[in-house]
Amino acid sequence: MPRFALRIEYNGHPFNGWQMQADQPSVQAALEAALARLDPAAPRSFAAGRTDTGVHATGQVAHADLTRDWAPDRLMQAINHHLRPQPVAVNACARVDDGFHARFSAIERRYTYRLISRRAPVVHAQGLVWQVRHPLALAPMQEAAQALIGRHDFTTFRASLCQAASPVKTLDALQIEERALPGGGQEFLFHLRARSFLHNQVRSIVGTLERVGAGNWPPARVAQALAARDRNACGTVAPPQGLFLTGVGYEHDPFAG
Amino acid sequence: MPRFALRIEYNGHPFNGWQMQADQPSVQAALEAALARLDPAAPRSFAAGRTDTGVHATGQVAHADLTRDWAPDRLMQAINHHLRPQPVAVNACARVDDGFHARFSAIERRYTYRLISRRAPVVHAQGLVWQVRHPLALAPMQEAAQALIGRHDFTTFRASLCQAASPVKTLDALQIEERALPGGGQEFLFHLRARSFLHNQVRSIVGTLERVGAGNWPPARVAQALAARDRNACGTVAPPQGLFLTGVGYEHDPFAG
Repeated sequence: MPRFALRIEYNGHPFNGWQMQADQPSVQAALEAALARLDPAAPRSFAAGRTDTGVHATGQVAHADLTRDWAPDRLMQAINHHLRPQPVAVNACARVDDGFHARFSAIERRYTYRLISRRAPVVHAQGLVWQVRHPLALAPMQEAAQALIGRHDFTTFRASLCQAASPVKTLDALQIEERALPGGGQEFLFHLRARSFLHNQVRSIVGTLERVGAGNWPPARVAQALAARDRNACGTVAPPQGLFLTGVGYEHDPFAG
Repeated sequence: MPRFALRIEYNGHPFNGWQMQADQPSVQAALEAALARLDPAAPRSFAAGRTDTGVHATGQVAHADLTRDWAPDRLMQAINHHLRPQPVAVNACARVDDGFHARFSAIERRYTYRLISRRAPVVHAQGLVWQVRHPLALAPMQEAAQALIGRHDFTTFRASLCQAASPVKTLDALQIEERALPGGGQEFLFHLRARSFLHNQVRSIVGTLERVGAGNWPPARVAQALAARDRNACGTVAPPQGLFLTGVGYEHDPFAG
């Protein structure tokens, strides 16, 4: 059966995360319902990142095996047709060989977290950012972030429910970008890149760095928190609505062709 | 009575434009209802740009006279408190003298129009952009735009309902910026600046330039359409949901202090 890779964008708000659960709306269920309209075999889908409730994506990748062959562009259009009006869309589609697995072939995940600092309520980015009312300083957050880059035991920064076999992960990049908002205030974009992440790792890191940006934590405390390997040493866990899965990397990018 | 200038951000979707109308929701009515909660005299408000139904703002400016004096920051917070949960927020507030009038003192209006070209449905910017499915070329749109900059009779590019005394306006700037979208496709941002605009002028210009970008019109046809001074020579009128009033200029910026 021909296998297709799908790059998927979604607003996480109406969903209880990516993964299918009984009696709960999920992105996977939405996608599989659309696939079922196209294919009598009602194909299952497998995704690179099982995003949590309320987390968004611009570059989630999933694969599914269809009964018949499709021109990738037509398949994308057909799936999108059946996904409407839900806030989910396939933004790229490619035919891949059976060796490709959206999750197990992935060698990199990229996330961006959007944090806005301003007094006035956010209007246009409502539901797509974490807003704080106090000022945040970029430089201390950037300084503190340095301690997290590289291979570490991230026990402090993972959910107690995390099922990963090991808390040791390599964080390849953590860049923080600041930009002025048109209506006043600042937006901070945290860009993180790793082969894989622990459960709640990005949100735990961003929530902790926010404490530094707010001036409540000195930058050095982040390195100490990491070294403690203790979940209780973590700062706040940032809320889900600021988090976006922006991309998944593979040895050979299925969408490059 | 102390006069305050307010810089206002809103999502135009739920409103029949800025201006108060009987039995129709409007941004002005939402603002004045919030002001009425703060001030027994139920102050009227006057805005720089009377945006149409569905048009958004990040930098609308209005003024209102209050019975008592307020610290501008506290006034902003109080108004925002009473505006909730509507998608309207005051993002700057300043005490101004009686000579300031949000509309009549304005010497510049700035608009940005967001146009997205891509096949997959827009998810995160839903309701905040005009989406077309075909490709658009930047260079021909930029070339055609040159003909519109400067002082011209813009009869072709104004609504037949436009009540301005003269169709002659000076368009000070029309810049088009292209950026790649995270999930694929391109976004084109049209930035326009003038002392004042005719009714539907920005949307008529963008809708016409889109025809050029799509390859349906040669760039030179835009200059011909302008010279025709004929509403029927206009291309499409772009839909309201891509349009943002981003700023209003004054001799002395009330929010600079």
